[in-house]
This record gives sequence, C-alpha cells and structure tokens, in this order.
Amino acid sequence: MAPTTYEASLPPPPGTTSPSFDPGTHHDHDIASCPFCRIAAIYAPYDPADPPPAEAEALNPEASAPNPSTFVVLSTPLLVAFLDIMPLSSGHVLLCPREHRPKLTDATPAEAAEMGGSLRVLSAAVARATGVTDWNVVQNNGAAAAQVVPHMHFHVIPRPELRAKGSERFTATMFGRGQRDDLDEEEAGPLAERIREAVAEVLRAEGRAKL
Amino acid sequence: MAPTTYEASLPPPPGTTSPSFDPGTHHDHDIASCPFCRIAAIYAPYDPADPPPAEAEALNPEASAPNPSTFVVLSTPLLVAFLDIMPLSSGHVLLCPREHRPKLTDATPAEAAEMGGSLRVLSAAVARATGVTDWNVVQNNGAAAAQVVPHMHFHVIPRPELRAKGSERFTATMFGRGQRDDLDEEEAGPLAERIREAVAEVLRAEGRAKL
Repeated sequence: MAPTTYEASLPPPPGTTSPSFDPGTHHDHDIASCPFCRIAAIYAPYDPADPPPAEAEALNPEASAPNPSTFVVLSTPLLVAFLDIMPLSSGHVLLCPREHRPKLTDATPAEAAEMGGSLRVLSAAVARATGVTDWNVVQNNGAAAAQVVPHMHFHVIPRPELRAKGSERFTATMFGRGQRDDLDEEEAGPLAERIREAVAEVLRAEGRAKL
Repeated sequence: MAPTTYEASLPPPPGTTSPSFDPGTHHDHDIASCPFCRIAAIYAPYDPADPPPAEAEALNPEASAPNPSTFVVLSTPLLVAFLDIMPLSSGHVLLCPREHRPKLTDATPAEAAEMGGSLRVLSAAVARATGVTDWNVVQNNGAAAAQVVPHMHFHVIPRPELRAKGSERFTATMFGRGQRDDLDEEEAGPLAERIREAVAEVLRAEGRAKL
C-alpha cells in the first residue's frame, strides 16, 4: 500500500561517513547552495516497489510554494533519482546520493553499490516507460570531465534510433553534447509516474522489496 | 600473499541466471566470438586486495601464444577490468561482468551492485595511478547509444586538464568521441601494475577484503 502520511520537512537520513580515500577529489562547496542536496532534503524516501500516487504530497511537497518542479522517479534512504530539467531526450534521468558527494570517489561503498543496482533497474524502467531500448549511462567527475553540478550524479539517457528519426540531432547530442531542451512540465508528470511504476514492476517481478 | 598457482584454463565461475526483465534488450550473439567473454575465460579471479606480481602467470596466461595483450587491473569471480586497447587517454579502463550480458539490464542484481562498488574503487585507483583527478564513467547500451562490443562494459576515462594541455584533443574526445590511439604496450604493463596496486591500497585502507 502506498504511504498515506508524509513529512515534507523530513531530513535525509544520516549518511555514513565518506571514506575520502582520494584527497585529490575534494572541493570546498557551499552545501546549502547545492540543488541536489536541496532535492534530497525535500523529497523523503518511499518504497520503490510501492510508490505513492502522482498526486501524493510525498511527490509534491512544494505545491503551496511553486518552484522549478522536481519529478522524482526513485527515492530510497541513500539515493534519489529525478528527471533532468534540461533533458537530452525524453526520459533523461539523474541518480545521486542524498548526501553531498562531489565525485564518485567520495561516495561510500554502500552508496556506490546501491547506485550500481539502481542504474540497472532505472535503465529497465526508463526503457519501458519511453519505449526506447538503447541508452547511455554517463557520470562526470570534475570540470575537465564536463561535470556541472558538483554533487555526483549518473545520467541515464535514452537514445532513440538515429536513422529512424532521420535527424542530425541525436548524433550531435551523443555522449552528452549538443542541444538540451527545457523539461516540458506537462509531459514530465505522466512520464515520471510511468517510470516510478516501471521501477515497481521490475522490483516486484524479481520478488525484491529493495534495490 | 599473492597466489602462486594458477590454472590458465580455469573456466569462469558459474553465473547466476540473467533476470531478463527487459525483453527489448536481448540480441542473438555468438558468445564464442565475444572478445570480453574470451578475456573472462582466460583470466581467472585473484584477490583484489593482494594482486599477483606483474610477471605472474595469472596475469600472463598466453605468454606461450602471443596475442593482442590484455592488461588486467581487477579480476573477481563476477567481474573483470582491463586497459582499453584503443584508449581515449592513458588509464582508460573497461569493467564488465564475466558472463555475457549484452546490456546493463541483462546483468544480475549482484553483478550490477558489484559494478557500482568497483567503479568507485577503480576510479580512485586510476586517479592515483595516472595523477589525473577528473574522469568520466560511460556505459553505452545498443547501437543507437554507440555501443560497439555487445557485452556490456563501463568505461572509466581520465580527463587531463584541458587548458593546461593547450590542446584541442580532449575537447574533441570528450564523452567518447574523437581520436583513439592504439594502446602502447610498453607503457601499459607498468600502468596496469600501478592500477592493480592502487586498487589493493584502497581496499586495504578501508579494511575490506572484498569490493
């Protein structure tokens, strides 16, 4: 059963300590200004195998104070995933740890393992929800690697068939370059709901309660 | 202590069954012709926290029958990682499941989780071994997403500072495009050894025997 109560102000669960084994990857950063930390603080975890309905407060904590919307597709005690607000294609999602981790090497072993498992499930869910069965997984660390938001995140980017589309656009945008449209918020709500449901279907089909 | 015996013909361990929850991602494929299945069959697992010396037979199973060399940097019962033979930069490594999985969605939950954990450790090890602290993680699924070898694999690609190099090359090769050199086999041996040792250092520093 979907959760019926929700605390919009629920803080993220306490993180485990960052192992910090690579001193070269740390940066000073104003956590309060991090958009992904903000999303993690506002959107509480839910059961991925039994997501709340689209209209639930859990998925709309800021209904009374509109802001750039966040369309959450997966939310666990350690991780959160949501639609990219500047997608390269429909179904482009981001997956990140709730805790502020600048680079992949700053994540804990538990976060890294759960991201690996979640990428597999999210990939299947995005393919089901979009009907696009080719996709890229991309994760950028540092400015020289084109990282923009300094809170590590994986991209899952559907790749519609190039030739069938007869379009130059997807060759240009291959691997994260090229035109990125603003997210269409009317399409985004139903799309995010389909992805949440597809995540639940995958987990239920495998008889798993957890990622 | 490093293993002193090794069976070059050791078959890969029996895989768990593929969950196959995404029917759209399966392809007919001649397993015998898959280069990554061949590597997995030839290179047995070793203890990542205590890798064998560079000259060990475990890392040179084909010394008597030379072939395009494989420079293994991580090898577990589920996964194997090695230097890309057409690197985008020095330290470009690939990580894949031993079992033939065409796409990420064909991996088992255990493989996906261990890949997530391994990407974190490999990233730290490659940064230590190369001195390059920015890098991309990329994983392509299907022809429209630029997948070339149809056995799923993650790329870890170091990104030297663009401007410091004064070079157009790394902007052109960003995200997997552009010039790829053949691997320099004289440099590759010592580089792979440094990466194996750095993997072991990371695991030992965290007091972990496993990934």
